[in-house]
Amino acid sequence: MPQRLTISCLGPCGTHSEAAARRLFPGENILLHSTISAALDAIDAGSAAFCVIPIENSIEGSINITLDTLSSNRDFCIVKELVWPIRHHLMAKEPSGPLNIIMSHPQALAQCRENIKKIYPQAKLQETVSTAEAARLAADTPGSAAIGAGEAAELYGLHILQKDLQDFSVNCTRFVSIAARPFLTAEESAEKTSIVCELPGEQPGTLYRMLKEFAKREINLVRIESRPARTALGRYIFFFDLEGSAASDSVGEALAAIKPQTLWLKILGSYPVLKA
Amino acid sequence: MPQRLTISCLGPCGTHSEAAARRLFPGENILLHSTISAALDAIDAGSAAFCVIPIENSIEGSINITLDTLSSNRDFCIVKELVWPIRHHLMAKEPSGPLNIIMSHPQALAQCRENIKKIYPQAKLQETVSTAEAARLAADTPGSAAIGAGEAAELYGLHILQKDLQDFSVNCTRFVSIAARPFLTAEESAEKTSIVCELPGEQPGTLYRMLKEFAKREINLVRIESRPARTALGRYIFFFDLEGSAASDSVGEALAAIKPQTLWLKILGSYPVLKA
Repeated sequence: MPQRLTISCLGPCGTHSEAAARRLFPGENILLHSTISAALDAIDAGSAAFCVIPIENSIEGSINITLDTLSSNRDFCIVKELVWPIRHHLMAKEPSGPLNIIMSHPQALAQCRENIKKIYPQAKLQETVSTAEAARLAADTPGSAAIGAGEAAELYGLHILQKDLQDFSVNCTRFVSIAARPFLTAEESAEKTSIVCELPGEQPGTLYRMLKEFAKREINLVRIESRPARTALGRYIFFFDLEGSAASDSVGEALAAIKPQTLWLKILGSYPVLKA
Repeated sequence: MPQRLTISCLGPCGTHSEAAARRLFPGENILLHSTISAALDAIDAGSAAFCVIPIENSIEGSINITLDTLSSNRDFCIVKELVWPIRHHLMAKEPSGPLNIIMSHPQALAQCRENIKKIYPQAKLQETVSTAEAARLAADTPGSAAIGAGEAAELYGLHILQKDLQDFSVNCTRFVSIAARPFLTAEESAEKTSIVCELPGEQPGTLYRMLKEFAKREINLVRIESRPARTALGRYIFFFDLEGSAASDSVGEALAAIKPQTLWLKILGSYPVLKA
């Protein structure tokens, strides 16, 4: 019998991260951690082969800790991406009764802010470290409800009072699975390539000249995100997501052409994109 | 005697926001609010003429709530910018003794993470809603210390145990003062122009063609930041900061040239930049 892989992700049981990890690595051993940093440390420590973490939400934007880790000296690469629909349900121990407190992770509360104000104007909001932790607390606290995934309701024996409480119907999170660098293989069939680089500052047109290398090869730039370079205010590093594989001629040539224009450039990976 | 203006900002007393507001509007009446949203609402409600809020930190990056408010339908504009050095000091009631808890705002704790680990490895970290609130709590809690601005130590009668606990010596926050739209005046001497726009998606080179309009007029793009458009995963709105005033020929022409290439474009203001 083949040995199962160990996959680290953000816990506790019943989070969207855990569901995404099970979808990306069916049948493998899932190891839950209390923070994203701890989940990533498990790769360094050799206690996990892959780590599944969120990188971007369609409403709230980038997950900074993920971007900052990928751009650091730590030698991680992206091996797979999963687009996961986020459905926030309101759940409580009792199917009816007064509702005084609504608990959830700050991002989930933010994503349901308008609907809560409209439907439950009297409820006090309380932040928790995860959506699953909110469900666990709601199971023990009369008059309270949690916002979380359907899996959490099942796990903690809660009734779903209201499905899809989120304000925006389009609510997805991109999860990536991360591995230590030796796993990096750029197959020509990979749908997406992610890079991160720092540009020499204070010259007009640096970014423009870089994008020109993609545009003239008709490479679609699906995402650009900046983060502080942390050397001075106004200095940034840039993350680019491109369509296509670094092993293809066009992307390979573009990357070779832009590298000399940067202070440093790191290819984070070329990888397939899965839908939920 | 002329009537004093009312300026809203994030409280309580002793925050960096309050210090920035006093620097931008010396001698005016400062009205403190418990959240950035509430400080902005004061402009809508007519209880403040200007609101001073952080927009970007050189270590932690953008303040999303500020960007999301500026890109919303609410008719705000930027009238001034201030670059404010952030110095995080460690302060406590007693000048020496055991130190079990270090309290501060999550951003301040994040900005001192490595130094805390090195110098106070035994201390437990506790998050508070502001750096000033941490100082207030430290004044009442034996064995605890707060991380905050020098003003907070004075205000709550604390000793500074360690100056400049931040991990990165370059730590500045850009604050902007916001007004309701009628205050917008683009003077030709304004140093900086901020715009926000949405680009039609799924075409290679859209962003490139936009940057071309700046590059060919030698307009320096000092910042580009994306936020989710909230219509679909992978759709973004872009914030650009340009050197120069929208009332100047080159910036004015570039903005006229790019507007037809966008789905919508909003000029957030042309404004002077103050140093602390």
